[in-house]
This record gives sequence, C-alpha cells and structure tokens, in this order.
Amino acid sequence: MEGGGLVRFQLGIAYDGTDFSGWARQPERRTVCAVIEDTLSMVLRHDVRLTVAGRTDAGVHASGQVAHTDLPAAPDLNRLARALPPDVRILSIQPAPEGFDARFSAVRRHYRYRVCDQQWSADPLRRNDTVTWPRPLDVDALNEASRLLVGLNDFVAFCRRREGATTIRDLQRLHWTRTGTLVEAEVSADAFCHSMVRSLVGALLAVGEGRKPAEWPASLLKAETRPSTVTVAPAHGLTLVGVDYPPPDLLAARAEQTRNLREHP
Amino acid sequence: MEGGGLVRFQLGIAYDGTDFSGWARQPERRTVCAVIEDTLSMVLRHDVRLTVAGRTDAGVHASGQVAHTDLPAAPDLNRLARALPPDVRILSIQPAPEGFDARFSAVRRHYRYRVCDQQWSADPLRRNDTVTWPRPLDVDALNEASRLLVGLNDFVAFCRRREGATTIRDLQRLHWTRTGTLVEAEVSADAFCHSMVRSLVGALLAVGEGRKPAEWPASLLKAETRPSTVTVAPAHGLTLVGVDYPPPDLLAARAEQTRNLREHP
Repeated sequence: MEGGGLVRFQLGIAYDGTDFSGWARQPERRTVCAVIEDTLSMVLRHDVRLTVAGRTDAGVHASGQVAHTDLPAAPDLNRLARALPPDVRILSIQPAPEGFDARFSAVRRHYRYRVCDQQWSADPLRRNDTVTWPRPLDVDALNEASRLLVGLNDFVAFCRRREGATTIRDLQRLHWTRTGTLVEAEVSADAFCHSMVRSLVGALLAVGEGRKPAEWPASLLKAETRPSTVTVAPAHGLTLVGVDYPPPDLLAARAEQTRNLREHP
Repeated sequence: MEGGGLVRFQLGIAYDGTDFSGWARQPERRTVCAVIEDTLSMVLRHDVRLTVAGRTDAGVHASGQVAHTDLPAAPDLNRLARALPPDVRILSIQPAPEGFDARFSAVRRHYRYRVCDQQWSADPLRRNDTVTWPRPLDVDALNEASRLLVGLNDFVAFCRRREGATTIRDLQRLHWTRTGTLVEAEVSADAFCHSMVRSLVGALLAVGEGRKPAEWPASLLKAETRPSTVTVAPAHGLTLVGVDYPPPDLLAARAEQTRNLREHP
C-alpha cells in the first residue's frame, strides 16, 4: 500500500459523538471521518483517506479509536489539534508497523456502555455519554445473563443483517459493574456486527430491570433474524475504548485472514 | 426559620456550569439558582428561595453543591428530575437538622480544578470541565508552591475585594496529582473569597510551567491588593465537589459564629 513517497501512519483518535452523524462519510452530514480527513488534507495539502477499526454509529463516542492512512509526512500534533474542532482529538500519529491495517489487522475491539439508573442523580457533566434508565438495574442479573452470551456464537439476533456478511462473532467479555448509581458494561469481541453492542445491551437491560429472565438473551442466539422484542439501547451510552492488534510479525497474516473471512464467510 | 407549616430541607445539587451565568440570580440571565427556584416553585406551587453554600461563578460546575430552603412538603425527586433541564440535577432533598444553614453552618468547601497539559490529548467528552494548557506542567513544582500557601492567611492578593468582607481564610488542602496528561488540583478551605480558587490556580500554573519560582505565589500573601501578575484561571476547569458541616448539635452555633464574623470581621 506504500508508494510515491508515502508512509503508512497509525492514528489514535477520540471523539464526543454527540454532534456527529457517526464515523462514515455521508453527503450533507457532519461525520467524524469527513472532519478528520478534511482537516488532515488541509494541513498536509494532500488528499487523505482513512481506514478505521470501528465504524461507530451516530451518537457513539470513542476514546480509543484506531485508523490508518498513507501520508507524505507526519503532521505536527499541536497544529492538528488547533485545526480540529474540540469534539474530536487525534491522540497520536506514528509510523505503522509493516503490514498494519487498522481494520483488518485488528484482533479485538473493546466497548464501554454507561447507564445511570436513577434519573435524579445523573451527573450533568457526563450526560453526553451516559444513558439515564428509568428503572433500577440488578447488576447480578445483568452479569448472569451476560455470561450465557460469551463465546463463539451466531449473533444474528443482535445484528442488523448485511447481505453476505457473517454474524458469527467471538464475544470474549461482557461484564457489568456498579459505582453508586452508575452501571457500566465492558464488552469485548474479535469484531462486532452492526448495532450488536447496543442490541446486546438492550436485551440485557430488560433482564436487569426484571422484565425478562436471565436466560432470555442467550435463548435468542437460536433465532434467525433480530426479534422485534430486542430493543437497541441508545447510542450515546456507548464508547469505543480500544482496539487490540497482534504482535508486529503477525499483522500482515491477520489482515489476510480477516479479509478472506469477509469475502468468503 | 420554620413557620406556617414550612419544613427546612437540605438539597444536594449538581450542574454543568457551561450554559449558566453562575449560581446567583441576575436579570435576563440563565442562572442555576433561578432555574432551580423556578422549577421548585412550579412543581410545589409555592414561592421557593434558596440559600446556597457556594455561589459559583459563570462557567463553574458543581457535583456537591448544598442549599437549603423552607418548603411545605418534600417534592418527588423523579418528578423534579423530569422538570429540570439536563444540565442541572437535584441529587437529594431531605429534612435539614435543627439549626442547619447551608451557607453559614458550613465548615469547609472542597473544589477540584482539571487541566490537561497536552492540547492534542484532551478528552473530548470532558472538554466542558477541563482546561487545556498549552505548556507542560511540573506537578512537583505545583505541589511545592501549594504547600507554602496552606494555612490561615490573608488571601487578599487572590481575591476580588468586597467592601468590609474579610479575606482571611484557612486554606486546609491544596494538592496536585497527574493521571496521564490530566493534572488535577484538590483545594479545600473553611471558605473562599470571590475568585480565590481560580486566582490561586492561575498563580500556581505560572510556577507549574516554569515561568515563576515555587516561592512566588506565597510571596504575594504580603500584598495588599491582587497584583496584576496573578491571572485568574479559566472558570470551566473548576468544580465545587463538596461541602462539610459540623455534627448536628453544633450546626446552630457554627451558623451564629460565621454570621457574626461576616458582620463584624
């Protein structure tokens, strides 16, 4: 992918998704990808296109998003910070290891979901990334139901189906903790299909508030499409907190493997 | 202060100060006091007036503000939460102990100040309550200079003078910590005069960035007015995090003592 004096760079990115129509470019919309590409293009006087690890939806935030792009030179981070709007930050830009692809080399994505289950105590300074839930949540029930979902499963019941794309994912961690009235989920998988985290959270919150038994979300793994009983939880509680990559010598092989899986699922 | 079937209530309050012109009522301005008083008055159909522990400036936040008011009955917190705008929350309303006065019974106020000293890494989700500082800060120097300010001193050099009001304050704690690129100060005193925390922080940041020696802020304690060399740090880094009160049997005596001190400084 290198050529014409271009070097591949790996970018660490954070954003408040509130005022963005998600990551992916859309005409007439303010998107994270367009804002960063346009700012980089302007600063570097070079047409910049990004490849990203997690294409987050409208309203979803990131503290550990990763992207790559091929640039003639590394831009100065301070200059870039001044050129970017305050709701998006480029945390780091460094030459990528050989074979690195932000999307296809990734082995794991980590998300966090924040819910406050007492309307009157929701921290006003965190209202952008915390959902207020009108009923109290039982964290033990949330964790019991979550444990039954972990593993290599077909998550078609929790995905917006895309033609030809696999919905088999390795859900590696799904754990809830409470701090006062704040309930947080940590969710990690090799990859997530579209709206998967929010659908899982939506189903689990039904268990957490006592409306469904702990076995219910896992029982949906047998479904062939997303049942209408699964509510997609609000976007603004969700943050992409990190992406894992294999050691440098395995980056190219991992990218090859993932690309083949996408094309011949 | 009770009468006509009124009961004194103690309120715990949090707000994002970004879109408020501070706590105190001002004509034609959106203030925290006016929003809460008007909402409570509407919900309770009773004219509500609040007395507050810390009259925060425009842009300053609170996670642990305390107020009192005399009400015919306790309003429902859920109903109140729905009636309030999302940037202000009433965390608690409970009958106040005998002799309680949110302002005059208070024995200690706690503030926090947040600075990120690397522009490109400032968390976009915390930009409302975190100041970005353009130069790196030395936390050891900040703490060395802070130690010299702690104690019972005349802080006139760090106060906007008000006619007749004392500027002698007992600064009990002023400590800085670093977490990555986030530098936080914890500041506690019996009370603060106007703009005192932000003036102290402004002077200390000059030390932290190496522009002034560690002895400089304390040397100003000998000044008779605020020197023009002391910059008031930006409001949005500051949050009132808590207020301490004495045990119930000492509330009335403490209020009496503070009131006298105000009237005959």
